[in-house]
Amino acid sequence: MTTTLEVHAFATPNSIKVPIALEEMGLDYRLVPVNLREGEQKTDAFKAMNPNAKVPVLIDRSVPGDGAVTLGESAAILVYLAEKTGHLLPKEGPERGKVFEQLFFHASGLSPAFLQLFLVAIQTSPQPEAKARALAEVDRTLGVLNQVLEHHPYVAGVEYSIADIAHFGWIWRHQAIGATLDEFPFVSRWFEEISTRPAVVTAIAKTTALAR
Amino acid sequence: MTTTLEVHAFATPNSIKVPIALEEMGLDYRLVPVNLREGEQKTDAFKAMNPNAKVPVLIDRSVPGDGAVTLGESAAILVYLAEKTGHLLPKEGPERGKVFEQLFFHASGLSPAFLQLFLVAIQTSPQPEAKARALAEVDRTLGVLNQVLEHHPYVAGVEYSIADIAHFGWIWRHQAIGATLDEFPFVSRWFEEISTRPAVVTAIAKTTALAR
Repeated sequence: MTTTLEVHAFATPNSIKVPIALEEMGLDYRLVPVNLREGEQKTDAFKAMNPNAKVPVLIDRSVPGDGAVTLGESAAILVYLAEKTGHLLPKEGPERGKVFEQLFFHASGLSPAFLQLFLVAIQTSPQPEAKARALAEVDRTLGVLNQVLEHHPYVAGVEYSIADIAHFGWIWRHQAIGATLDEFPFVSRWFEEISTRPAVVTAIAKTTALAR
Repeated sequence: MTTTLEVHAFATPNSIKVPIALEEMGLDYRLVPVNLREGEQKTDAFKAMNPNAKVPVLIDRSVPGDGAVTLGESAAILVYLAEKTGHLLPKEGPERGKVFEQLFFHASGLSPAFLQLFLVAIQTSPQPEAKARALAEVDRTLGVLNQVLEHHPYVAGVEYSIADIAHFGWIWRHQAIGATLDEFPFVSRWFEEISTRPAVVTAIAKTTALAR
């Protein structure tokens, strides 16, 4: 099988989502490191792929017709891959809607909350109030997810989906940014399960290797 | 035609997106006001619809089988309505991917930036640095959009889509939060065009009436 999928990425919460999905779907791919420590995401070459200057970016050269598909935004890439393969996204019905609800709750709620706590955590002398405020929003979003996961095994219902992969990306780094899952038993149960999936273990190994 | 679609909303940037889409698609709907000034989005009744305690929420009772679809997250609602009607979202191809890229760039980038500036703007005595930092991120995201709109008439390419509606939701309120489009000529051109679409004018009139 020819390698047609290129993932421009680094060892980050948003990057990790794409290799996880690709491993789950059994697709061949090539990781292309974008060294954020050296600001490679801000070069003109990178911004020609994604004017928002963020990893990950997917390039699919297998598309028939007028050339490659180039996509930024990790969740948009997850949707693209799910529709390309028919995996991890229900084709119709209420559960399809719930996958999108959770993808957008991740993008607009949980992810910005975790990012804000990360940005506070890496400051040399963070303001205590700023840290408390950021942690409170992280805990609020984890509380919302805990409520969802009390009623279903996965974030969008009875089936594992790309929405689980999206949430996992940031929650994977919860310890590094000073958050805890102790108060969220249903999130903890879900996190343990997702963490040990073979595809997830493999994707984490490959993606963290980019930063070495 | 029976009214089967209920939109629980208020006069907010996220709420406005749903009536705009419904007007564009020619669907019948009923707006149910959720008074944010009185905290109605935090009631148990509301949180049973959306545990994230945010407007808008869509309820579609026309679904065959086991009951209604209840969805939070404005962009997830836009995707749901587009797939229900076959309007404003290409069914396949690179442009479908670009709609999702822009929907997620909106959810994770432009929307949080505008929200942050709004939160600073409504403080009684905002810190100048906090305001400058928030405005810088608003301008950065508008710059990204300007670059996209330099090459295409709409945010996802040659066709008007639900991604335009998503971005319009927050950009509609740019003046109220102290931002300006003066430095972004392609965004300005796009904003003028979208603002004057009959469906948009109607939706704004109906949605702003909720706050009176």
